[in-house]
Amino acid sequence: MSNDVSKKTAETAALYFKGVSGEKPYELWKSFDRNLARDLSLFITGQIYSRQVLPHPTRQLVAVATLTVLEKTEELDLHLRAALNVGCKPRELAETIFQTAIYGGVPAMNQGLKTLRKVLEENDLWPIADED
Amino acid sequence: MSNDVSKKTAETAALYFKGVSGEKPYELWKSFDRNLARDLSLFITGQIYSRQVLPHPTRQLVAVATLTVLEKTEELDLHLRAALNVGCKPRELAETIFQTAIYGGVPAMNQGLKTLRKVLEENDLWPIADED
Amino acid sequence: MSNDVSKKTAETAALYFKGVSGEKPYELWKSFDRNLARDLSLFITGQIYSRQVLPHPTRQLVAVATLTVLEKTEELDLHLRAALNVGCKPRELAETIFQTAIYGGVPAMNQGLKTLRKVLEENDLWPIADED
Amino acid sequence: MSNDVSKKTAETAALYFKGVSGEKPYELWKSFDRNLARDLSLFITGQIYSRQVLPHPTRQLVAVATLTVLEKTEELDLHLRAALNVGCKPRELAETIFQTAIYGGVPAMNQGLKTLRKVLEENDLWPIADED
Amino acid sequence: MSNDVSKKTAETAALYFKGVSGEKPYELWKSFDRNLARDLSLFITGQIYSRQVLPHPTRQLVAVATLTVLEKTEELDLHLRAALNVGCKPRELAETIFQTAIYGGVPAMNQGLKTLRKVLEENDLWPIADED
Amino acid sequence: MSNDVSKKTAETAALYFKGVSGEKPYELWKSFDRNLARDLSLFITGQIYSRQVLPHPTRQLVAVATLTVLEKTEELDLHLRAALNVGCKPRELAETIFQTAIYGGVPAMNQGLKTLRKVLEENDLWPIADED
Repeated sequence: MSNDVSKKTAETAALYFKGVSGEKPYELWKSFDRNLARDLSLFITGQIYSRQVLPHPTRQLVAVATLTVLEKTEELDLHLRAALNVGCKPRELAETIFQTAIYGGVPAMNQGLKTLRKVLEENDLWPIADED
Repeated sequence: MSNDVSKKTAETAALYFKGVSGEKPYELWKSFDRNLARDLSLFITGQIYSRQVLPHPTRQLVAVATLTVLEKTEELDLHLRAALNVGCKPRELAETIFQTAIYGGVPAMNQGLKTLRKVLEENDLWPIADED
Repeated sequence: MSNDVSKKTAETAALYFKGVSGEKPYELWKSFDRNLARDLSLFITGQIYSRQVLPHPTRQLVAVATLTVLEKTEELDLHLRAALNVGCKPRELAETIFQTAIYGGVPAMNQGLKTLRKVLEENDLWPIADED
Repeated sequence: MSNDVSKKTAETAALYFKGVSGEKPYELWKSFDRNLARDLSLFITGQIYSRQVLPHPTRQLVAVATLTVLEKTEELDLHLRAALNVGCKPRELAETIFQTAIYGGVPAMNQGLKTLRKVLEENDLWPIADED
Repeated sequence: MSNDVSKKTAETAALYFKGVSGEKPYELWKSFDRNLARDLSLFITGQIYSRQVLPHPTRQLVAVATLTVLEKTEELDLHLRAALNVGCKPRELAETIFQTAIYGGVPAMNQGLKTLRKVLEENDLWPIADED
Repeated sequence: MSNDVSKKTAETAALYFKGVSGEKPYELWKSFDRNLARDLSLFITGQIYSRQVLPHPTRQLVAVATLTVLEKTEELDLHLRAALNVGCKPRELAETIFQTAIYGGVPAMNQGLKTLRKVLEENDLWPIADED
């Protein structure tokens, strides 16, 4: 089973972070503690993200919404890129961020929108086309 | 257009809060200020929740995720009931709450799970059946 | 000067907590550590709340607004009573709480409004009269 | 009535943002969705900020206090400028931020003070004069 | 290695929760999903709490401090009991909670102190003796 | 006693901030209000940090843990330097930050780790040696 978790971890990480430059969380953790980094990665990516109950695009909307209200901008940037990689539409990402204003307030939403705009620009998806 | 927003507000509120007892947010606001309550309700329900970019079940997962990490328990209770009303499965709701632990921590997830269990019990959906 | 701070502390505490039943923060602290309780009380009440730059009603609106977005319900209850004691109007308190929704979201506002309604009821100020 | 809200929105926005450079929230929202931006702006600026229950300077102190404890630095910067535009004194703004330490802690207060100092410097109001 | 993690998980859980009544987090998780509950428990208890870099009493002070500022009262209650089980002194727990006021504000500290007092009372450790 | 507090304040500040460049919190406060800065400093440094119930290294782990979950990065940077000054080991600081992920989530932990890595690099303590 451990091999199975390792395989799922690698596949899911490859799917999410395709084309994403910069240090990944796993690399940050590994710079401190190789074993703990492995445990964290197998748990988060292999035992949570690779589960089948929610499809990947829905999981990413959940991530985007929570990271917006918690104003975790670097992590939000990463998950917006993962969201595009798994097929979320730019318009859905914007809508998710807009909706969070009701729960987490307008300033957090504003930071979320700015982060999304930057990610879309870097992916040549800005301004959002009518069909996106 | 104002009539249109009023109509959408009423329809969406009826859909979300079908069978939900207790004071609704609109009633709370109205007890303080009738006009402001109307403005708030038309804006939130009529101009945000009734938009078509995200389907209702996805919107509710977004609400559930953010309310869990922000630990807004009463509001989470309300949106879990709305989620069931628009067709979210118990298992999807649990999965959404489990996922938030990564972003908002385990204690917030625990409160979310307890709130979900209570809502499912009151709707005769507990324990979660295999096909749910 | 220390006598001066003690005097201001006593005067300000008497003003804020007039007619407020239940354990005051100072009493909670004293049950753990008499000296630290005194230091905390002299600092917060004597050296912050008794300053003259902001009038007491404005200070209480600041307290009410921040305690609402931070969702510190017990402390909010206490400061709403202090606010009434220093002359804040019920309508101003409601308006302050309504405004916070923009920054801290609607669920926190809802809890703030519920707390205010309870405090006003216990002070025979509910429903809010037209002239309040 | 809709015309009335539009007029109040424009007047209040002009008052608050006089001389403020950089992208305003409304412009950010509009870059994503013109209709939703309009709805948001009419609601926040036209139906909340233009209400008469609290005078504009008090509203801005409420905004400054909550944005400090929530540590929304960009939005705090904007509202500090709006506060100066509606007549808040530098010393009142500092006092408001100092007071929030009791509720939201010292680190959030420190960020608030740094933001205020920057805004005052850019408005040639630093250091704070004795009569301010 | 998996056996080793299981063993550490069981040992650490037994140490922390000795004599603690009520539903444990693991039981809550298991009521939703047996496999995920196991993964969570092995990760948190077996791969984090059982590590040797920090001694158990220090780990519990870290838990108490963060749960206080995040105001996670139920979880704080649980970790205060675990703290007593691993040898933390009542006075150290109170001091840790007092210190957090600087970072997370006084209201969160107050809730932390109330939770501690309740836990100490239920363990016949209240009021705190001079030698504790 | 006031002299005693002043002395403790100076000693503790010297211990914590030895070799730390950049503006200290006291200097920030003093740029706004000399008297209030003194009150704040005597209270926080002289009446909290200089207490003897917790040894300085434990106090700094408490500070590091709470500042990580609250994501107060500038203050965390300062307290990580203070932690090294009072004898905390790099590995203990990393472990403390890793543990907070359970309570405050992974993104806050990631920011904490990045801040720690920067501080260790600037103190020639990176990468962490086996004996640290």
